[in-house]
Amino acid sequence: MMRLTILGCYSATPRTLNNTTSQVLEINNHMFLIDCGEGTQVQLRRNKIKFNRIKHIFISHLHGDHFFGLVGLISTFRLLTREADLHIYGPKGIKEIVTLQMKLADSWTNYNLIFHELTTNASKLIFEDEKVEVYTIPLNHRVYTNGYLFKEKEGERKLKLKAAEKLNINVAYYRKLKQGFDVVNEKGETIKNETVTIAGKKPLSYAFCSDTMYKEDIVPIIKNADVLYHESTFLDKHAHLAAKTKHSTAKEAALIAKQAQVGTLLLGHYSTRYDSLNVFKEEAQTVFENIELCDDGKVFEF
Amino acid sequence: MMRLTILGCYSATPRTLNNTTSQVLEINNHMFLIDCGEGTQVQLRRNKIKFNRIKHIFISHLHGDHFFGLVGLISTFRLLTREADLHIYGPKGIKEIVTLQMKLADSWTNYNLIFHELTTNASKLIFEDEKVEVYTIPLNHRVYTNGYLFKEKEGERKLKLKAAEKLNINVAYYRKLKQGFDVVNEKGETIKNETVTIAGKKPLSYAFCSDTMYKEDIVPIIKNADVLYHESTFLDKHAHLAAKTKHSTAKEAALIAKQAQVGTLLLGHYSTRYDSLNVFKEEAQTVFENIELCDDGKVFEF
Repeated sequence: MMRLTILGCYSATPRTLNNTTSQVLEINNHMFLIDCGEGTQVQLRRNKIKFNRIKHIFISHLHGDHFFGLVGLISTFRLLTREADLHIYGPKGIKEIVTLQMKLADSWTNYNLIFHELTTNASKLIFEDEKVEVYTIPLNHRVYTNGYLFKEKEGERKLKLKAAEKLNINVAYYRKLKQGFDVVNEKGETIKNETVTIAGKKPLSYAFCSDTMYKEDIVPIIKNADVLYHESTFLDKHAHLAAKTKHSTAKEAALIAKQAQVGTLLLGHYSTRYDSLNVFKEEAQTVFENIELCDDGKVFEF
Repeated sequence: MMRLTILGCYSATPRTLNNTTSQVLEINNHMFLIDCGEGTQVQLRRNKIKFNRIKHIFISHLHGDHFFGLVGLISTFRLLTREADLHIYGPKGIKEIVTLQMKLADSWTNYNLIFHELTTNASKLIFEDEKVEVYTIPLNHRVYTNGYLFKEKEGERKLKLKAAEKLNINVAYYRKLKQGFDVVNEKGETIKNETVTIAGKKPLSYAFCSDTMYKEDIVPIIKNADVLYHESTFLDKHAHLAAKTKHSTAKEAALIAKQAQVGTLLLGHYSTRYDSLNVFKEEAQTVFENIELCDDGKVFEF
């Protein structure tokens, strides 16, 4: 199960009722914070997300509506006497911005602040543990920008215990079987793995793509993702504005979703020029069926 | 008349219901923004303060709870196509923090952003026009910090018209009289100014002092101010914490107010460790009578 909490999903500037980009992805006991617009720390409190569970923050790009809340969050973690390491992934320059402010405030963190500055223009594995991988998704915006792909690893296969016993497989080989290997039984016969196991839990994946103009070459990277968040700042009638500012329309987001054959497309990063959010969904559904609209405070479970 | 709007008056970190330091002082058609904690731009919207009326921002020091909202506000002004100049007063380093973020975002303002970086440790006139003056108030905190004194200039004296006519003063001298000079009448006699004029409207003054430990040598600078905002992070029972962190207690704020013989003392910059704000007022009133408690969204008129 993945749980995604939208802390903010509006473009440009925070307003009384609209927060700029930030979301929390819970996947396999991780609590990944993705982008961190101004006010994110208050949105975390409002949504009752425990600060201490956040150990990794992924920043897409250095426009204010995606990271102006970062230095405040780091500072609040310090005031709350955090001890756990904090890893920050983002474009080159992010370390200088944060450390300059810590230096001038004469306020260094007691916990370890570990920056992973990104510069590559190809998709790259940037985080990995036993169960999860995170890859960058190179995007095309006015400044250097990465989306992020969060993927569970293939889990262990499930053993069909009775079948294994019947085929005289020594229990010492059960672990190998769960890992997908063929084994030799007590009689010296080779037993094909799929004879005695079935596939384990389907690994889940989430792709976050914001901000970006329409960029087809991300399709192979996000192919078959269970969930895709793709920015849709504008509607098709303002495609000229999308092109000029290197953003996407709802229709373009849907075209990417369709080609990548994702499970669900989440829309967000709305311009506040439109009267309702439904217009984004209606436009996108002319291309791709399974659409959900993000809104601040909304929680999705997949 | 002065109008002071408290946008935030809590210490340390923004919370769901508590904002960090920021306030707007309206005095003589100016709209001065004093400090700019994270979320200030949303607080300005909530309190219906027109962004365009803000032309001068005064930052006391470079701790996050006093300026982490500044870069976002500057950025929002740009997105709203501001044209008017914006003057920013604050400690040396503030320009580098803001410009580094503009550079990395490749987002320069179209309006003029004029930094006035402060380094002196003596009170200094930093702004002046026909009607208002602003002075720094050197404070004592963990980093370089200034309070600010906002003062109306002495207005013109009021002419006692009948007395002037009776004393045969030529109307050409009336302007000189209003400016406070003695004049010579038609008969060649010197007429003392106070014989034919009375004092004009009493000029108002507001002193903002945060963050600081108890510092008696600010008393001559803020002497007789109509209103003093003095931080009171702690109560006297936590005087050891105030000393350690270079903050003040409510009692110390009141001692300053008493010595400076100000009109009203406003308390703020509260630690959130106490259950109610009244405890600050009660403690301060053992020393000085005329106390008001700040709270977010509160408006004072003087």
